[in-house]
Amino acid sequence: MTDEPRLGTPVDRIDTPALLIDLDLFQKNASRMAQYFDTRATALRPHAKTHKCPRIALTQLELGACGITCAKLGEAEVMADVGIRDILIANQIVGKIDRLTNLAARCDLMVAVDSATNVTELSRGCQEKGVSLRVLVEVDIGMDRCGVQSGEPTRALAHRVVDAPSLHFAGLQAYEGHLVLQERKKRERGIQVAAEMLQQSCDLLEQDGIPVSLVSGGGTGTYDLSGNTPPWNEIQAGSYILMDATYVKVRPEFRPALSVLASVISRPVPERIVTDAGMKVMTHEFGLPQPIGVDGLSLTRLSEEHGKLIAEHPAQLALQPGDKIRFLPTHGCTTINLHDRFYVIQDGVLVDIWSITARGRAQ
Amino acid sequence: MTDEPRLGTPVDRIDTPALLIDLDLFQKNASRMAQYFDTRATALRPHAKTHKCPRIALTQLELGACGITCAKLGEAEVMADVGIRDILIANQIVGKIDRLTNLAARCDLMVAVDSATNVTELSRGCQEKGVSLRVLVEVDIGMDRCGVQSGEPTRALAHRVVDAPSLHFAGLQAYEGHLVLQERKKRERGIQVAAEMLQQSCDLLEQDGIPVSLVSGGGTGTYDLSGNTPPWNEIQAGSYILMDATYVKVRPEFRPALSVLASVISRPVPERIVTDAGMKVMTHEFGLPQPIGVDGLSLTRLSEEHGKLIAEHPAQLALQPGDKIRFLPTHGCTTINLHDRFYVIQDGVLVDIWSITARGRAQ
Repeated sequence: MTDEPRLGTPVDRIDTPALLIDLDLFQKNASRMAQYFDTRATALRPHAKTHKCPRIALTQLELGACGITCAKLGEAEVMADVGIRDILIANQIVGKIDRLTNLAARCDLMVAVDSATNVTELSRGCQEKGVSLRVLVEVDIGMDRCGVQSGEPTRALAHRVVDAPSLHFAGLQAYEGHLVLQERKKRERGIQVAAEMLQQSCDLLEQDGIPVSLVSGGGTGTYDLSGNTPPWNEIQAGSYILMDATYVKVRPEFRPALSVLASVISRPVPERIVTDAGMKVMTHEFGLPQPIGVDGLSLTRLSEEHGKLIAEHPAQLALQPGDKIRFLPTHGCTTINLHDRFYVIQDGVLVDIWSITARGRAQ
Repeated sequence: MTDEPRLGTPVDRIDTPALLIDLDLFQKNASRMAQYFDTRATALRPHAKTHKCPRIALTQLELGACGITCAKLGEAEVMADVGIRDILIANQIVGKIDRLTNLAARCDLMVAVDSATNVTELSRGCQEKGVSLRVLVEVDIGMDRCGVQSGEPTRALAHRVVDAPSLHFAGLQAYEGHLVLQERKKRERGIQVAAEMLQQSCDLLEQDGIPVSLVSGGGTGTYDLSGNTPPWNEIQAGSYILMDATYVKVRPEFRPALSVLASVISRPVPERIVTDAGMKVMTHEFGLPQPIGVDGLSLTRLSEEHGKLIAEHPAQLALQPGDKIRFLPTHGCTTINLHDRFYVIQDGVLVDIWSITARGRAQ
């Protein structure tokens, strides 16, 4: 096992590849988002699928978040282990009912549903275990993934939840994932269309005497749109906390605090520089990560264990084996999913190591 | 933490997403490759970057492999922890010299080099620690990644190694990664070109009185080409042991033993089926993984936590939330890198769980 570097180690002496957090930028991002929701009725429930790190979730809660969002039951178990109480698993949990109800017994859990059979399964499991569970009916507002259709199908499923023993109907989940990375005008228009669709479902339920106290959705790309548009009253933004090269294009008010530190391991010919950071430590579904602060140097290929870079003016670039390069990930959530720890940097030295404890808890 | 399922659990009762190994197919692949090299002077040194699993490495050694190949120092440390002696790190290790020499003190280690400064650094570190290290000079035979050019640059660097205290010049490393997935004729021609280039470098060294006892390279795509062509005498094949949808096209004699078990979590409209296996558990750089044994059902999109499938004839497909689907990965090495354990299956039940101990040991 790799020995952990001592706190105070200069960043360039950390073994590579390493996933870095710039602590100052991280704190600015955390505070900025917290402040936005401080003065609003809408709550922030940050999505922990981004960071998978209990230490970061606790920071978000200290700054006023109403609870935490998780994608997976395994992530929620990790968050409950550090004493986090208010947890939404923003997905359908099918099977695993014994684990789910065990977790419901030790925190204030909420899940999304979109089928009657799942409602029955959850209700039976909770009854057998003597626990209760908050439930959001997930509505498809145009993303075409999970979620019942709005209107009558939503109404019918909400009634099922209301009638199901040991389940508490908490409201609706409506995630506009098809909008979060669109350009601003499209995001704005899309949010209006989705909000109207969602409001109609809320109205139907209120007419039936079923209060919709919670409408949860939203992301970093839409926090100030859905976060400012009824009926949403809870936003699940995740990426804002660490950011990446993709999100910073639509959300420049948050700064990229995440980077991958790599070593040059080879420069066999002057124009070609090879690092030890390949696709096993940086993802590329949103494009190849590029080096930070090195002009005229481009990553042209990631293989499993290597990054291949080409220098535009080789004679002007002094990089040699042993030198370090930092890369800006193009997708933070999936890049973090490849690492076990964040190396937290301030003023050029290591000031903390945060465990990405929920990494790999995909079950 | 997820409780591990008991041995004997039916495959459909394992929590999902889960990475499965079909034990019978795994054993057939392992035996087939071992048998190929049984009767040849060329040795098999399987690449552990594929499986990152000490249990599998030990199986490969029991079947006659001469040692193990690793991509990273951290992987080699894990393999040494279970008593494996003969380990090649088939990359340049730059920095981390203290860790490298600690490892050299407890196993019979070999590394690749392609720069004089790295040779100096390794030699100094080994001298200080009082250990010796076997070194391969990496030659670029057309992959355009790491490696010195063949001919004079190779000769010059080999002399450096020979002259460096505490280093033992073991031979050359030459990996034809640009050929392994080409169609057969191109692979054959490419191997001949690369072999001639490599032979010239060997001849230069032999003329200087420097014996080239080892020439290591090759992969699953070329094991019977470079494995049957001098001067190669050691093959680093990795993927053959578990295979994937990409490699099986060029190597049908090995069978895909790897799959990802997923649950249907939603079928909100008849034609759309959503599973709990997204890009955090299956990679897609070689294409989207497809379901195994379900006609008329295609994975059309992976998001982080979900797989979206479209049914060609919805009325004929009975899948409902809770049902299981298995996917064939398109790239085994990077998919395995997302998981912590293999669930080993035989006759439809869980017969073992193998820890992917070196996952995440990218440093």
